[in-house]
Amino acid sequence: MKPSGIITLTTDFGTADPYVAMMKGVILSINGAAKIIDVTHEIHPGAVSQAARVIRETYPFFPAGTVHVAVVDPGVGSGRRLIAAEVNSRWLVGPDNGAFWPALKDDENALVIELTEARYFLPHVTPTFHGREIFAPVAAHLSLGVSLRKMGKIVSDPATLILPEPHSDGNALFGEIIRIDRFGNVITNIPSMALDRFLGRAMPCIEVGNLAIKKLSRIYAEEEKGKPLALINSSSLLEVAVNMGRACEYLGMDPNEVIGTVVKVTKS
Amino acid sequence: MKPSGIITLTTDFGTADPYVAMMKGVILSINGAAKIIDVTHEIHPGAVSQAARVIRETYPFFPAGTVHVAVVDPGVGSGRRLIAAEVNSRWLVGPDNGAFWPALKDDENALVIELTEARYFLPHVTPTFHGREIFAPVAAHLSLGVSLRKMGKIVSDPATLILPEPHSDGNALFGEIIRIDRFGNVITNIPSMALDRFLGRAMPCIEVGNLAIKKLSRIYAEEEKGKPLALINSSSLLEVAVNMGRACEYLGMDPNEVIGTVVKVTKS
Amino acid sequence: MKPSGIITLTTDFGTADPYVAMMKGVILSINGAAKIIDVTHEIHPGAVSQAARVIRETYPFFPAGTVHVAVVDPGVGSGRRLIAAEVNSRWLVGPDNGAFWPALKDDENALVIELTEARYFLPHVTPTFHGREIFAPVAAHLSLGVSLRKMGKIVSDPATLILPEPHSDGNALFGEIIRIDRFGNVITNIPSMALDRFLGRAMPCIEVGNLAIKKLSRIYAEEEKGKPLALINSSSLLEVAVNMGRACEYLGMDPNEVIGTVVKVTKS
Repeated sequence: MKPSGIITLTTDFGTADPYVAMMKGVILSINGAAKIIDVTHEIHPGAVSQAARVIRETYPFFPAGTVHVAVVDPGVGSGRRLIAAEVNSRWLVGPDNGAFWPALKDDENALVIELTEARYFLPHVTPTFHGREIFAPVAAHLSLGVSLRKMGKIVSDPATLILPEPHSDGNALFGEIIRIDRFGNVITNIPSMALDRFLGRAMPCIEVGNLAIKKLSRIYAEEEKGKPLALINSSSLLEVAVNMGRACEYLGMDPNEVIGTVVKVTKS
Repeated sequence: MKPSGIITLTTDFGTADPYVAMMKGVILSINGAAKIIDVTHEIHPGAVSQAARVIRETYPFFPAGTVHVAVVDPGVGSGRRLIAAEVNSRWLVGPDNGAFWPALKDDENALVIELTEARYFLPHVTPTFHGREIFAPVAAHLSLGVSLRKMGKIVSDPATLILPEPHSDGNALFGEIIRIDRFGNVITNIPSMALDRFLGRAMPCIEVGNLAIKKLSRIYAEEEKGKPLALINSSSLLEVAVNMGRACEYLGMDPNEVIGTVVKVTKS
Repeated sequence: MKPSGIITLTTDFGTADPYVAMMKGVILSINGAAKIIDVTHEIHPGAVSQAARVIRETYPFFPAGTVHVAVVDPGVGSGRRLIAAEVNSRWLVGPDNGAFWPALKDDENALVIELTEARYFLPHVTPTFHGREIFAPVAAHLSLGVSLRKMGKIVSDPATLILPEPHSDGNALFGEIIRIDRFGNVITNIPSMALDRFLGRAMPCIEVGNLAIKKLSRIYAEEEKGKPLALINSSSLLEVAVNMGRACEYLGMDPNEVIGTVVKVTKS
């Protein structure tokens, strides 16, 4: 696989502290031509599931040969393995905590390597910042064309991650809220395909909190300003929104408390 | 016009969600050498006027041949046109909602094209994320040298945007607050030129909230720490500030509520 | 010294306002090939000490020949000098307010130049945005290989900055809190070397607020979830943390009020 020269970063480090910049300095010290793209550094601290969804949703939009580093690593320095993987012509680099599982599942030929070859690390490895001392330099070396297989031994059992899937009891389809975005949009884990399969030709009734929405809109502007609606969003997921407004506040929900709230769909 | 290879992004997407990264991935999949610069992703959701001011203030600092993408698009998927324009040797790309009007007004030879040629889009266009599927790929193609004229037909009536201008009744010059910046500085829409014209050789009295400031300072440090002052800022606009402090709090104003508040200048 | 082509930016400008983007536009207009890296734009407004620590901690991770611009400049336009320095094979550019002192101290051969040659500035210099009109263009010219010595005359007395150092009265080692990071970790100014020297072979008792911690952990996961601990962090500083939690909240401390709080270490 030919490197694209692009390295993306997904962390829970924020951008006020110097941690991300240190990682970028390390990468550029090894590959001065690397093109570094921030996916986000605002993963909720320690939220591996959130990182897993972001990686899974984002990586396919980057060119083949891109290296995606994800460091959400509350267990830094403990027994968890350090891995790099080759998945659908991209590389993934980070702790083996399940953050890559949704992406790994997509590719039955995925190759996962435990990073054990210290010559691809910084000379001095501290116990608490493997992002800087291991994952950043490994990513830089991959972006220069170093073979993944040289970096350690094959892992046959990477950490898995169970992300809640929607389920149906025949009468209703049950999903849950997985993200509130900057617009206050309420994003569920119900894919359009599952919704179509459940509904057939019936009209939906989408229930979340006190709200019941009885149609699917195509776009936000289909409803009046301030009115709630449901649509299939750009990630092919069922989303509840308010045109020119914030659905989470409309629902009286605290964006920080709402992940996991049940969303119920019936035929109306 | 020769592309600079630089593409800037101005959105209301924030940086916690994966939307901006998806756009960057799309751009780099088409032009792997593009240099992507974030202007800001913290435009208030749907605030087209704010985006318009930021674009107008920022684009002249970039090299000729830069592509500026602005996606503040509450009407995504509705009837609004998708445009790209050639203005003062730069390209502007985004929904036709007025965000480019202040820049377009500056150049009577501006060329505006409605984006209709789907071969410059992603193959799959969703109804709700034209930033990713249309504007990002169009920008990437422009940065590679594709001719704007090939991308659609000429638009003779791009959407306009009325940004409030200061006005005088002879006795007073009236403007308004257009932005509170990170320092709490209160930025008005009164350009130094309009102020000079109104004042002639008279001294000013600048009134905002309960405050009346009777001189123009040159720099913040001209007043004592914690004292209010007025100056012409680096965008040539009248600004009320507090040396080493926050003018909006000094004035007892909520930064989120204050846009549009009247600022009155008289001769003292 | 050969430029790396990399320019880093550290400011208190935030990312919502257009200021940082203007600086980037200016840099790219002079050196279209420059690689610009944001260290952080979230320095607390006017917090020169915070900027000084971030610069000192970050610059060594970047390649030799990198230009580091730091603009935390409450005195913009007043008498303070504008400087650029050559330190340990990197350049530092910004106002002479002490932000570079911790880095300058490290290199007895550091060369500091007062920026007086206006041909390396933008043609129009406003009184209030030297970041855009002086420091950004100077950085761009340095990144192109212009000699620092051509930019002005040597400064023999750059502004110093006293950062509080830990001190011992024989019975106890006293330090203070210098930063709360995104994880709520409480970072002190006590370097591991000073701690080792003080403790010898004794066990520590680390007191901060109401908390006394009687051992040093190696990693966060060494304690149970939610339990406090102390460790030497990746910057070789004593840090108080809570595994999977926020130490500053555990201590009942307001992250915005806590800088300077005493941390006391005794032998237990």
